[in-house]
Amino acid sequence: MRAMTVTQYGGHDVLKLQHLPTPTPGENDLLVEVVCAGMNPVDYKIRSAPRWGERKFPFILGYDVSGIVRGLGKSVAGFNVGDEVYASPNIGRDGSNAEFVCVDYRSAALKPKSIDHAHAAAIPLAVITAWESLHMHGRIETVAAGEHVLIHAGAGGVGHLAVQMARIHKCAVITTAGREDSIAFCKSLGVEHVIDYKNDDVVKRVAEITAGKLCPIVFDTVGGEVFNQSLRCVGFYGRVVTIVPGIPTDHINSLFAKSASVHLEYMGLATMFDAGPQRQGEILRKIASLVDAGKLKVTVSHRVKLEDLAEAHRLQETGRTIGKIVIDVKALS
Amino acid sequence: MRAMTVTQYGGHDVLKLQHLPTPTPGENDLLVEVVCAGMNPVDYKIRSAPRWGERKFPFILGYDVSGIVRGLGKSVAGFNVGDEVYASPNIGRDGSNAEFVCVDYRSAALKPKSIDHAHAAAIPLAVITAWESLHMHGRIETVAAGEHVLIHAGAGGVGHLAVQMARIHKCAVITTAGREDSIAFCKSLGVEHVIDYKNDDVVKRVAEITAGKLCPIVFDTVGGEVFNQSLRCVGFYGRVVTIVPGIPTDHINSLFAKSASVHLEYMGLATMFDAGPQRQGEILRKIASLVDAGKLKVTVSHRVKLEDLAEAHRLQETGRTIGKIVIDVKALS
Repeated sequence: MRAMTVTQYGGHDVLKLQHLPTPTPGENDLLVEVVCAGMNPVDYKIRSAPRWGERKFPFILGYDVSGIVRGLGKSVAGFNVGDEVYASPNIGRDGSNAEFVCVDYRSAALKPKSIDHAHAAAIPLAVITAWESLHMHGRIETVAAGEHVLIHAGAGGVGHLAVQMARIHKCAVITTAGREDSIAFCKSLGVEHVIDYKNDDVVKRVAEITAGKLCPIVFDTVGGEVFNQSLRCVGFYGRVVTIVPGIPTDHINSLFAKSASVHLEYMGLATMFDAGPQRQGEILRKIASLVDAGKLKVTVSHRVKLEDLAEAHRLQETGRTIGKIVIDVKALS
Repeated sequence: MRAMTVTQYGGHDVLKLQHLPTPTPGENDLLVEVVCAGMNPVDYKIRSAPRWGERKFPFILGYDVSGIVRGLGKSVAGFNVGDEVYASPNIGRDGSNAEFVCVDYRSAALKPKSIDHAHAAAIPLAVITAWESLHMHGRIETVAAGEHVLIHAGAGGVGHLAVQMARIHKCAVITTAGREDSIAFCKSLGVEHVIDYKNDDVVKRVAEITAGKLCPIVFDTVGGEVFNQSLRCVGFYGRVVTIVPGIPTDHINSLFAKSASVHLEYMGLATMFDAGPQRQGEILRKIASLVDAGKLKVTVSHRVKLEDLAEAHRLQETGRTIGKIVIDVKALS
């Protein structure tokens, strides 16, 4: 099969098109013919340096897939050859930047019927991250309708889905954005308050908007100083959830005065360590219903062909893309 | 009224017996005649240095009370003069080391009928801390029966109540203790595994006991290196809950690899900032039922007269007492 591979750790030039054997599905695997793959920051991070363990070269990135089931491991239940599915492939194994990928059937779901593979491929990793952050860690089910939650970078891949998820839950959403187009995009999602972080004092604005109450959930998708800012925006008994490894920890003790918590979300565990992969399947089934009901929309801002994967990496690394970048692998007629 | 007061920040000699006016209950207050007060580490911490804000001297410590209602603020509902109640007085106001104290009625409950005031006074602050740590932060309701939770210092004031609470929830409890008497005491509580932290490697033992799965909840009541140890004992998606301000934060990023969280519990917020004081009342009502049903037992290891308050401080500061220290304020016939 055709695959874009990582030949050593490094820059964009380590990505090479190669012909590799089609993988054989393991016991719990679906063999999926990839129609589209999704791009995430974790791709360029793994390309650049060892992360989540050393890997044998060449290996294949790509932790979002939408495609067609072409083979079944012997323990697979609930799926048939020919099913159109979407999933986030195991970050510890070869990914979806290739014509075929294996995914644990428990972590997969039938793709939403109302959208194409390009949009379905943009969903899994980001939506599972957003769901685990807001539900599992953030306990959004305990947040009353109309309460303010702060979701940083609402125009981003994870952010734009998290924002919609919080609004489905009837929270009043505050988000941050720094450019005219991303501010406009956040507003188009129905977000109640978009703070222009380049021109406004985020902490002060959050205090104003919430009348000093601050937020029960602050979702940090940016890291660094935004994490420190998040500590100051969370209210009594609140949850700061971050998805960015390497947070600055110097100010965490300030949360004692609020009886609050810091949550370090990493969605990859479930499939890497067999730590509840079925939760991913459940989340993706719920999300497919929301998408098909017109309640959740994924935005794809760029589509790139498999052989131009380096361009997808370059775009993702700017940190300025709106919504998601998708890789077209199979040309559908 | 007679009151033991703090006359300036410092050692035991700053505690002085004084006669002060009996307080007038505010709108939401019960005026409680103190039969017994409970001692907690927060008392000597506030005595030693400004904490949770500067205070005017002289002020009165004591954040546990069991006693008799003698007056009612005008918004009080559900209580009558003569009721026997227990509560944790507001840490920002004068406490229970005196013949009378005011407590927010929403944070109070009728004392358990089956125990005396000395035992009732030993419960509120510690049990609210344990409850918020295990339920609100630790989400113990999501832990399956038989799963292992680690509660450090199971012989301590908070620890010995937390241990019983986790067992009521059918968790298998692992705790730590360092002396023959505290190890024996933990065993008498029915704890499944008592690790002698002076002679055993806690992290290694927890890994052995849990067959490498580690714990969904680790409750740190000690701080310092025990907090760091706690980070290593928590499993995937787990919660490390600490009640000790000033945790070392250098290793918190290690929790990314487990998608885990750190919770900084401080029970005093609810009454200090009117941040849900009724939750304390609810917890104390639940606990009274458990105590009266014989399911939860508080252990009082020392009783000290009000005028000997310095001795209670000295004992608490050793960090070696089992269960709780109680101050006798009113001599009941």
